[in-house]
Amino acid sequence: MAQGRFIALEGGEGTGKSTQSRLLANYLQEQGLEVATTREPGGTPGAEAIRHLLLDPSGDGWEAEAEALLFAAARSDHVARLIRPALERGAWVVSDRFLDSSRAYQGGGGGLTDDAIMDLHRFGSRGLLPDLTILIDVPDDAIAERLARRDGGESDRIGGRDAAFHRRVKDAFVRFADRELGRFATIDGSGDVEATHAAIVTAIEPLLAIR
Amino acid sequence: MAQGRFIALEGGEGTGKSTQSRLLANYLQEQGLEVATTREPGGTPGAEAIRHLLLDPSGDGWEAEAEALLFAAARSDHVARLIRPALERGAWVVSDRFLDSSRAYQGGGGGLTDDAIMDLHRFGSRGLLPDLTILIDVPDDAIAERLARRDGGESDRIGGRDAAFHRRVKDAFVRFADRELGRFATIDGSGDVEATHAAIVTAIEPLLAIR
Repeated sequence: MAQGRFIALEGGEGTGKSTQSRLLANYLQEQGLEVATTREPGGTPGAEAIRHLLLDPSGDGWEAEAEALLFAAARSDHVARLIRPALERGAWVVSDRFLDSSRAYQGGGGGLTDDAIMDLHRFGSRGLLPDLTILIDVPDDAIAERLARRDGGESDRIGGRDAAFHRRVKDAFVRFADRELGRFATIDGSGDVEATHAAIVTAIEPLLAIR
Repeated sequence: MAQGRFIALEGGEGTGKSTQSRLLANYLQEQGLEVATTREPGGTPGAEAIRHLLLDPSGDGWEAEAEALLFAAARSDHVARLIRPALERGAWVVSDRFLDSSRAYQGGGGGLTDDAIMDLHRFGSRGLLPDLTILIDVPDDAIAERLARRDGGESDRIGGRDAAFHRRVKDAFVRFADRELGRFATIDGSGDVEATHAAIVTAIEPLLAIR
């Protein structure tokens, strides 16, 4: 049995990652593949419990270091209990966010060094990286319009941070994609859902071919 | 205002740490000192929420790496929000367990390297160490007798691990105390509560004198 493939979808709030993850998983299933669709923070019962602490914390929330440690703990459980077992039995994994969100949010946004976040990842998850990371890029004005249309405009503790924070997150994602061209595919997400999905399918086709 | 002092009480289950923490805090208050009595995992609302995930996990519990990351996250919040502010306003801090429990349980017991645990501590808590660590040492047969007397013999997910695990934990504590004589005081906890308390007071007297 061939090892499965691991695809992560990344980007800021409102870029359509969740919708595109579902569409990509459906597409892969139609190709006859077993697909595990998951998300971060979360994906396993333990990691979902940590997700709740992260996105709806009591009191003053977390400082940057505690937040990064909690994300690394959730990811460690997610990788050990869901992602690695799926890949080992030959399934494809499609995750709505993964490591690069920690690098962009706690690093780019929160000011921690990229080395510190990578050290936590090596410790917690033996440094597992996706085979391909789809970065969905949408212009800021289109994002603002999409977020305003969300029910009640509600956001969690991290999504609700200020515009300067989200600017740093976006800049960090673009920087990672520029530096690690082999692992990233940057997709224009400014069009409609179908156009973006088609671009993602084109980006993952090389992985399907070399199976 | 002088900086406060930080004292941690360490040892395995049933060594009397909680009782001795309370008695020590009372003694220090009688000397006119402000004392913050706390515990790990926990001590702040965020860290107590993580404590709940650690000691009463859903499903299969945590693997060693995720567990160490969760302890480091709880400690980061505890240090940033309770311990450092208390020390900075001149209070003494008495904590029932601290870093050396992670070194002994996740390291000695769980098989992680001491370097890995210290790396997490440097990242999460800027490497804060107690001024004095009281290691309460009680012979194994006396421990077994005390634990059997506890209500219903109930234990949490970590305390309830097997005898070989607890043997490794105890050996690790003794090893740390031997290697870091300046930071540790090993107290014979085989006698009654008052005798152990008196020995602890003798051990902390040098810290009181140099205030």
